[in-house]
Amino acid sequence: MLAGSDVDVTLVDRTNHHLFQPLLYQVATGILPEGLIAPALRRVVQKHKNISVVLGEVVDIDLKAQTVCALAPDGARIALPYDTLVVAAGATHAYFGHDEWAEFAPGMKTLEDARHLRNHILGAFEMAELATDQKEREADLSFVVVGAGPTGVEVVGQIAELAHRVLPDDYRKIDTRQARIVLIEAAPTVLGPFDERLQRYTTRILERMGVEVRCGTLVTAIDEDGITARNDRGEERIEAKTKVWAAGVQASPLAKMLASATGAKTDRAGRIMVEPDCTLPGHPEVFAIGDMVSLNGLPGIAQPAIQEGKYVGKVIRDRLTGDTSVAPFKYCDHGTMATIGRIHAVARSGGMSFTGIVAYLMWVFVHVLYLIGWGNRFGTLYSWGRSLWITRNRAHRIITLDQVIDEIGSHGSTTGGTMS
Amino acid sequence: MLAGSDVDVTLVDRTNHHLFQPLLYQVATGILPEGLIAPALRRVVQKHKNISVVLGEVVDIDLKAQTVCALAPDGARIALPYDTLVVAAGATHAYFGHDEWAEFAPGMKTLEDARHLRNHILGAFEMAELATDQKEREADLSFVVVGAGPTGVEVVGQIAELAHRVLPDDYRKIDTRQARIVLIEAAPTVLGPFDERLQRYTTRILERMGVEVRCGTLVTAIDEDGITARNDRGEERIEAKTKVWAAGVQASPLAKMLASATGAKTDRAGRIMVEPDCTLPGHPEVFAIGDMVSLNGLPGIAQPAIQEGKYVGKVIRDRLTGDTSVAPFKYCDHGTMATIGRIHAVARSGGMSFTGIVAYLMWVFVHVLYLIGWGNRFGTLYSWGRSLWITRNRAHRIITLDQVIDEIGSHGSTTGGTMS
Repeated sequence: MLAGSDVDVTLVDRTNHHLFQPLLYQVATGILPEGLIAPALRRVVQKHKNISVVLGEVVDIDLKAQTVCALAPDGARIALPYDTLVVAAGATHAYFGHDEWAEFAPGMKTLEDARHLRNHILGAFEMAELATDQKEREADLSFVVVGAGPTGVEVVGQIAELAHRVLPDDYRKIDTRQARIVLIEAAPTVLGPFDERLQRYTTRILERMGVEVRCGTLVTAIDEDGITARNDRGEERIEAKTKVWAAGVQASPLAKMLASATGAKTDRAGRIMVEPDCTLPGHPEVFAIGDMVSLNGLPGIAQPAIQEGKYVGKVIRDRLTGDTSVAPFKYCDHGTMATIGRIHAVARSGGMSFTGIVAYLMWVFVHVLYLIGWGNRFGTLYSWGRSLWITRNRAHRIITLDQVIDEIGSHGSTTGGTMS
Repeated sequence: MLAGSDVDVTLVDRTNHHLFQPLLYQVATGILPEGLIAPALRRVVQKHKNISVVLGEVVDIDLKAQTVCALAPDGARIALPYDTLVVAAGATHAYFGHDEWAEFAPGMKTLEDARHLRNHILGAFEMAELATDQKEREADLSFVVVGAGPTGVEVVGQIAELAHRVLPDDYRKIDTRQARIVLIEAAPTVLGPFDERLQRYTTRILERMGVEVRCGTLVTAIDEDGITARNDRGEERIEAKTKVWAAGVQASPLAKMLASATGAKTDRAGRIMVEPDCTLPGHPEVFAIGDMVSLNGLPGIAQPAIQEGKYVGKVIRDRLTGDTSVAPFKYCDHGTMATIGRIHAVARSGGMSFTGIVAYLMWVFVHVLYLIGWGNRFGTLYSWGRSLWITRNRAHRIITLDQVIDEIGSHGSTTGGTMS
């Protein structure tokens, strides 16, 4: 929105790329290479000479002096003065007061997270193949995903695909189809924001794929060996080496920093409550948008963030022409969707619900459309053709012994075994 | 060669993939994603049910008990008894007695190495953009590659491509074309094994691409800030944040282990001298092949390793039928080739020399042919189309602030700077 306008824009980020998070689970399960969903920021804004990019971490925002302070890779503090500031720092996982769970049940918000998860999932199958103890092997082959929103459903679906369709012929001692795959959700149903028909459809497809779906179930403990959960029927312990956290999110710490500087409130997830025009109270020159803000009860998904970004860009452009009569931000709900396994999906759009191949084609169309650049779009279609539609391979499943040791090996037993 | 034979084969490796090293430099410079040059071992041998794969590190070989001992990810010791053993553990970089240089001038033998190098090279441009001191900026934009064999020539060529063709429009404060790119070689010419015409051609193309080629030059010191080198005309110090080591290799430590157990000799590079049939002295049941062995003065490149592998497979099959009248290994030289930058190459084959587009097309044909699987072949051609032939992008250039800090940031200055 600000490309070519008479403004100088500085874009500060801790990474050099723009990550398309909705496909992150496909990196974690070996379908896509990282590059296709994470084009370099510099390349995205290359043609817009009024935009420059800084690789740095924002550590302080001085609202009085109107200066952002960022740390450069060499430790230098870079002071970035501004007339107008837009903060869009997103969210990270939240463990509801149990931060010690993070070590055992990694979440998935960054490419680094996705790589860790891939090492973990693929490493578990390797360890199962080498295990000499039956109980150990069962724990290696047990996968628990916590949280049945779109991310949890998509991850658990791909783990089921790996176990049932991709990996069976790759192993000699284990039958990967024996893997136990559990989806745990505290709410009474999967996919909260979808209607009941889509929720039932999703549960049915997941169960047909071999996933145990446990709704109305609360996680009470997670450690390196497994997970404990409780529901109406009592408490259950599942011995599982791989636990994936897709349950809670919490806003970037910058939300709290801005809240305490302006007197704005934050909600339970640490999201800052902004004015109807996305500004901070008393600071019309500071906007906050996306997953780190709380506005009109909008969910922390891509569409509100994208629309808020466009809205704020337009407000800034209008101010340049002296027009400050701003209408409040209005969200236009285009719907929402999720894939289940290889070629199933559910979608809600324009008051209608879709399942099966129709929903899947909608999902493919929308997700390819939102990728940046034709090279990435065709590359992604090619990867989907290889991994999902034509063959059953996963082209991007690289792990090393050291990575597996880092992820799960060191947590495993150290008793020796002998193969013959 | 042993697929479907009446033998049980166990393949032990520290990684889960078969790495095609000749294209590793393209991962290090963002052209290819990792997966295309590193298919999973399990998938490569999937159809051959007599072959099983173990993810583990070989820590001991007991030639008397005929048992290999490997460490599993959970620290368990796996004992693998054998009738016949083939050791093909390759080589790693050697710093000619200066192991302390490894920290400052990383080599490139594994995917991990390639990732490090990519972080380093791309991070250097980011740091140059943020630098406030002119000398600091020049050091950020100085790249030195040590060793002008095929790997060194290919890496330095791609760094020149990045600086001159890919990145110039991505930056606002620096002109990446001002980068200083130096290739240092101790021998009197680049590409030792090629003939004089190809050497001259390579030097001319590299110089036209902006690379300073320094032959007959010895590296005397490497530290975090730069490199010191000496030749006929004296000693020179080059301040450079990025140094790449492509000079020396040394055999896997397993070569020395086998040598001391059998009384076999090793050469200067630690490679074990094997019998003419690739067996160890006094141990006809143990073969050693590839970059870790010294045989008939063959160079440590792909072709001898591939041919030795096929030869040993045939010897083992012949023995099954009782035929032990083995002819010694005979190498058939199919030639050798290297690319220079984007679309130049040199090739030597069948007593003839090729340059320019003909050599480049030969290079493309051979390298695509040797990739495993059509999915990877088409994927690689697609990536080359995107990055080399049609557009000037690099699709796979992901870095994060933390990675840059790990690679070079912490070595940089800690004096602050202010941008406005």
